[in-house]
Amino acid sequence: MSERLKEFREFRERMNARIHESGNLDIKRFFALDSRAYEAGALPVKTKELMGLGASLVLRCDDCVTYHLVRCREEGVTRDEFFESFNVALVVGGSITIPHLRRAVDTLDELEPLS
Amino acid sequence: MSERLKEFREFRERMNARIHESGNLDIKRFFALDSRAYEAGALPVKTKELMGLGASLVLRCDDCVTYHLVRCREEGVTRDEFFESFNVALVVGGSITIPHLRRAVDTLDELEPLS
Amino acid sequence: MSERLKEFREFRERMNARIHESGNLDIKRFFALDSRAYEAGALPVKTKELMGLGASLVLRCDDCVTYHLVRCREEGVTRDEFFESFNVALVVGGSITIPHLRRAVDTLDELEPLS
Amino acid sequence: MSERLKEFREFRERMNARIHESGNLDIKRFFALDSRAYEAGALPVKTKELMGLGASLVLRCDDCVTYHLVRCREEGVTRDEFFESFNVALVVGGSITIPHLRRAVDTLDELEPLS
Amino acid sequence: MSERLKEFREFRERMNARIHESGNLDIKRFFALDSRAYEAGALPVKTKELMGLGASLVLRCDDCVTYHLVRCREEGVTRDEFFESFNVALVVGGSITIPHLRRAVDTLDELEPLS
Amino acid sequence: MSERLKEFREFRERMNARIHESGNLDIKRFFALDSRAYEAGALPVKTKELMGLGASLVLRCDDCVTYHLVRCREEGVTRDEFFESFNVALVVGGSITIPHLRRAVDTLDELEPLS
Repeated sequence: MSERLKEFREFRERMNARIHESGNLDIKRFFALDSRAYEAGALPVKTKELMGLGASLVLRCDDCVTYHLVRCREEGVTRDEFFESFNVALVVGGSITIPHLRRAVDTLDELEPLS
Repeated sequence: MSERLKEFREFRERMNARIHESGNLDIKRFFALDSRAYEAGALPVKTKELMGLGASLVLRCDDCVTYHLVRCREEGVTRDEFFESFNVALVVGGSITIPHLRRAVDTLDELEPLS
Repeated sequence: MSERLKEFREFRERMNARIHESGNLDIKRFFALDSRAYEAGALPVKTKELMGLGASLVLRCDDCVTYHLVRCREEGVTRDEFFESFNVALVVGGSITIPHLRRAVDTLDELEPLS
Repeated sequence: MSERLKEFREFRERMNARIHESGNLDIKRFFALDSRAYEAGALPVKTKELMGLGASLVLRCDDCVTYHLVRCREEGVTRDEFFESFNVALVVGGSITIPHLRRAVDTLDELEPLS
Repeated sequence: MSERLKEFREFRERMNARIHESGNLDIKRFFALDSRAYEAGALPVKTKELMGLGASLVLRCDDCVTYHLVRCREEGVTRDEFFESFNVALVVGGSITIPHLRRAVDTLDELEPLS
Repeated sequence: MSERLKEFREFRERMNARIHESGNLDIKRFFALDSRAYEAGALPVKTKELMGLGASLVLRCDDCVTYHLVRCREEGVTRDEFFESFNVALVVGGSITIPHLRRAVDTLDELEPLS
């Protein structure tokens, strides 16, 4: 894992802990709902994670994209599947998503270096 | 099909025709790319349409939601799968998506009346 | 209450019921969190409702604006306070919020006709 | 002018008057800044109105689009220029802008019926 | 004050000066309106700053969040009040705001280190 | 050219190459449409680039702003024209665009240092 991804993960975990330490129960419940939304149900995890990836791209949130790229990889999403997902997001969200697409491809390369 | 859905479809087709009559080739090409983005490839049509539905909900576009609801129904998405998709979009996009979620459920009821 | 506001409320309640009938527990939990977010705590209800109103205006969601206008009125927000809130939202969100501001003022007039 | 455009204009003027009657000076000042932004300066009015039209389309505000279509027509924007502007907005903003593009073309047809 | 907050403030002041040096009077007037929007009026400063914080979170602007966190602290907003505000923004804006929430909590920790 | 702008350009070119190497033809076609949208037609390049700049500011995409600032400079946009464009975007998009405006002015200074 690259230095950038390690820092991303470390910051994410440290801040999630800080948020939970706040004692605000409803924020805790929101985080629980957020996790459950991607669990297997009528739809498989992979489909839900791809939906999360697409939504993150059209809403242009780099950290959310990184998170769902990692999760999609864990669910076995292939490089061709990633690029088809990127294409759906690009068409829906337009050229304004391209800088985020570039960073998504960079992150994908960090997750699995390809020639 | 309800009166509202008929009007939606009629307006959509009439305006698409007007746009194509403009003679702007690049807009035509964009519409072609838009159609192709949801065709079967490495990912199945159903997954891509669910991604389109989720993106439309978090971006809060009622017409786009209606379009993808119809397409998802054609691809066999079940009621439980729809509500799991709605839940992903609701968690990602927040309560600001709820009015669109209500209209999505209304449209779903029009597409297939359920007790 | 005007016909438009009655229809808004009726549709809202009917669709919330349809959503709850879906049996999707996590959507139910989200709706519960949504309600609790505006309850009295360290911050008073009025402040939270004004935050909800401002967020709804800058995110440009007419139904959300209508909902929070009604709630703010119930919490005793005065006409001058409403317009100062509108001004904060207008400055933050820009002229793109003006059509929503117009509809907000129209709704406010329906809630309490003023000379 | 179509019935829809007349109602749009009438509502707009009536609500602007209501907003000004509120006595909130800063909102008044914002409205003045909004008008001045499109006046001739280093850039001609037509260029600024096209920028306003493009921004309104990518931000997906139908009323703002209608307003700038009317103003652009007054500044002599031709049908080909309109569709090139639509194309810029479509590419930047993606397919999520298409429903607004359809309504923009419908409004353009109302402003100047073309065979 | 942390190094990051110092740099934020220094860049902000330097660029505001550059913008004012441009001689564009309307931009100057906009900046004046922006400042006035948060001044005491019918609503107290604290309420307006909380509205600014909430709007900044749901619109996902880190710099705006940082600015309003600093101002809210100056107005005496407590840690519990901050987290209730975060919760309102999180529910309205959804999980897509979470990366901004994490950075907001990090900034809050920099402003007032807590065990 | 500043170090930051060099890195921006280098990353942009490297990632565009990576995206093209993916073999996804529709993404390639989208990139081609994106380029063509700003070519001379019924509207001159300068007008289209200013529309791209305005859309990028109101959608708050720093990389897109940087790209269009460079292109606008190449098309001869003057400092006064830039600030009038910034003003249109500021009024349309609101104070939430100010951090992006600051970075745009910083980039403009890097492109052409002015006393």
